Amino acid sequence: MYKDLNTSERTQMTPGPVEVEPRVLRAMCTPILGQFDPDFTAIMNETMAMIRAVFQTENRWAFPIDGTSRAGIEAVLCSIVEPGDKVFIPIYGRFGHLLVEIAERYGAEVVSIETEWGNVFEPETVIQEIKKVKPKIVAMVHGETSTGCMQPLKAIGEACRELDVLFVVDAVATLGGTAVKVDEWKIDAAIGGTQKCLSVPSGMAPITFNSRVEKLLLERKKIEQGLVEPGKAKNNQSRMIRSNYFDLSQLMDYWGPARLNHHTEATSMIYALREGLRIVLEEGLEERFARHALHEKALMQGITAMGLELYGNPECKLPVVTAITIPAGLDGESVRKMLLEDFYLEIASSFGPLKGKIWRIGSMGYSCRQKNILTVLGALEAVLIRHGAKVYAGKAVQAALDVYQAAKAK
Amino acid sequence: MYKDLNTSERTQMTPGPVEVEPRVLRAMCTPILGQFDPDFTAIMNETMAMIRAVFQTENRWAFPIDGTSRAGIEAVLCSIVEPGDKVFIPIYGRFGHLLVEIAERYGAEVVSIETEWGNVFEPETVIQEIKKVKPKIVAMVHGETSTGCMQPLKAIGEACRELDVLFVVDAVATLGGTAVKVDEWKIDAAIGGTQKCLSVPSGMAPITFNSRVEKLLLERKKIEQGLVEPGKAKNNQSRMIRSNYFDLSQLMDYWGPARLNHHTEATSMIYALREGLRIVLEEGLEERFARHALHEKALMQGITAMGLELYGNPECKLPVVTAITIPAGLDGESVRKMLLEDFYLEIASSFGPLKGKIWRIGSMGYSCRQKNILTVLGALEAVLIRHGAKVYAGKAVQAALDVYQAAKAK
Repeated sequence: MYKDLNTSERTQMTPGPVEVEPRVLRAMCTPILGQFDPDFTAIMNETMAMIRAVFQTENRWAFPIDGTSRAGIEAVLCSIVEPGDKVFIPIYGRFGHLLVEIAERYGAEVVSIETEWGNVFEPETVIQEIKKVKPKIVAMVHGETSTGCMQPLKAIGEACRELDVLFVVDAVATLGGTAVKVDEWKIDAAIGGTQKCLSVPSGMAPITFNSRVEKLLLERKKIEQGLVEPGKAKNNQSRMIRSNYFDLSQLMDYWGPARLNHHTEATSMIYALREGLRIVLEEGLEERFARHALHEKALMQGITAMGLELYGNPECKLPVVTAITIPAGLDGESVRKMLLEDFYLEIASSFGPLKGKIWRIGSMGYSCRQKNILTVLGALEAVLIRHGAKVYAGKAVQAALDVYQAAKAK
Repeated sequence: MYKDLNTSERTQMTPGPVEVEPRVLRAMCTPILGQFDPDFTAIMNETMAMIRAVFQTENRWAFPIDGTSRAGIEAVLCSIVEPGDKVFIPIYGRFGHLLVEIAERYGAEVVSIETEWGNVFEPETVIQEIKKVKPKIVAMVHGETSTGCMQPLKAIGEACRELDVLFVVDAVATLGGTAVKVDEWKIDAAIGGTQKCLSVPSGMAPITFNSRVEKLLLERKKIEQGLVEPGKAKNNQSRMIRSNYFDLSQLMDYWGPARLNHHTEATSMIYALREGLRIVLEEGLEERFARHALHEKALMQGITAMGLELYGNPECKLPVVTAITIPAGLDGESVRKMLLEDFYLEIASSFGPLKGKIWRIGSMGYSCRQKNILTVLGALEAVLIRHGAKVYAGKAVQAALDVYQAAKAK
């Protein structure tokens, strides 16, 4: 009735999901363990330690949320935000709007400012606004895949700490591809993604938070009904976190030594995440970021050599996503379709005001390698020629090869 | 630094997570596809069709939530429940309390009744209460793994439909192991689990809901900020669903023909779920339920032949979980520890008032096979003897073998 799974092999050059590391795919074949099996809790603890390492933090709390990246964002926001809390959100792309959306749903009084897409904020502008708005929480996106821009965070983090404001950062697109320095940048809570620079399938979201956040969570803590032992009073606080699934105060008791039953941990995804993190740490963070930067350079050189224009302010370019202005008169979706159907290669379009105006090419994790960069440049050139667009034929791949040869010569 | 994943092979006889079908483990090794790749959306559509089949429903809407089972429950409840809504929840174990917990967090005015654990409700009792309470929603657990009991639902479902009450059922423990007849029992929304009778890893929750629920969702619908195209007004309704991640009205646009971006679907878990469902349908629902019943019988005969007592009212026994009273004076946790450490086999304890009083043995999905039943009986007998408990030595495995031989003779 239903056939064997037999999918096409794609070259994945979107800003996620990207190609999964073969070792990660194999790790998922491991038979499962019970969630309180000492062998499994040891794996959970190792995973926590590796999440700390990639976030460059000494935080005690670092674990994955069992859901996709936005589940991690919602877990952090809904556990921190109480109805009426003032949350300040500077927006420079779609995922800033998502922060607003989630914070508002949990009752926040959101104050936002927005800058033109394709750009980011001067940190000083944000800091001045924080001083005016006096929020409890500032939430920002580190890397906006929707526009291909990256916001510098250090000065903002330092200002938040000084002003006793909680600083929440969506590092979904950047974690594992470029530096995310949670402690040095004074980030109170950060959320990463698996299906981007970690090259693990979508379905988990590593997060970390510090003792400032923990203190707030403990004030809101509630033990689940049905787990309360006889004779112990039920607790039911007015400040309780609205979601049960995303209640970080309960998740602390699940990931901490209490090992109190909550959900059933997603075993195979933990195996995948553990292996993906292990690969990141084996490669080394600095080496990994340098690799991403090299392939980004080759890709950008190739794109511009072809005669295409990069989109957005180059000074704040997100190193793992390259946004390209679709030449006037060209049907961007037709180009993407031909790339997929004839070259088995996927690049992305964008959202909202940028829909139909830019393409986005990711160079993330395992997808970020020479073979893929050369493939996407060659294929894009061929498809553009086929669409009658003016390109400098033969230049793109050569320009990228120049970058690679220069790097090897060093 | 961190070693290769090298886990012990366990015989998993808890009420979940259970051993994963080898074919499902292999399906997860498949390289991923982009979420809007036509190859992938075809897989999503097939998965929806198979979810319908296992829920025995014609509902249009049947898809997984990307999270563990309780994520499915929370998605359904938070999308339906509006602050102040009256929700009636008859409780007969831990997971009834979880329904209360989740409904209350989303602002429901919960009315609950509770029956002694180890039993279920007379449907007529529940129906009389519904008529008194006049709730908008009735939420019930189909199979309570915490006590090993199963609630008959048909009469309650019919009464709910007649009274125009929405009937929500947690079928996490039963889906794929015993009949869950969504349409015939007039269930408006049901939630299943993957890591139990479907033998797929934890991390997804198949759900289904009908047009009565859809109507309510459409009234609460809101398009996400950042996806609104220029010139189209933002919508921001007072009745909006509080969670973004669990917003079923947005998920309908993701799983439906609009394919509107929401989360990034958990690719490898979809591959796993698709393969698990395919195995269920290849085996056939009736054949699968009969297999579960056969192994349950062998297990029960073995347990009682050993001299142990089954816990709970046998008339409402959950066919896929067998609860056993821990003999007086015996340390149940020490028995479980020895089973794990010496026999590499896991059975479960229980929660709250039953903590330390019962063991629970699951016979679910791929774990529900002759080899495992005979193994758990032999190992349990040996461990009990080692603990100085009085057992009829040598009887348990023989009693189970009698059941299997009688079945073969038929």
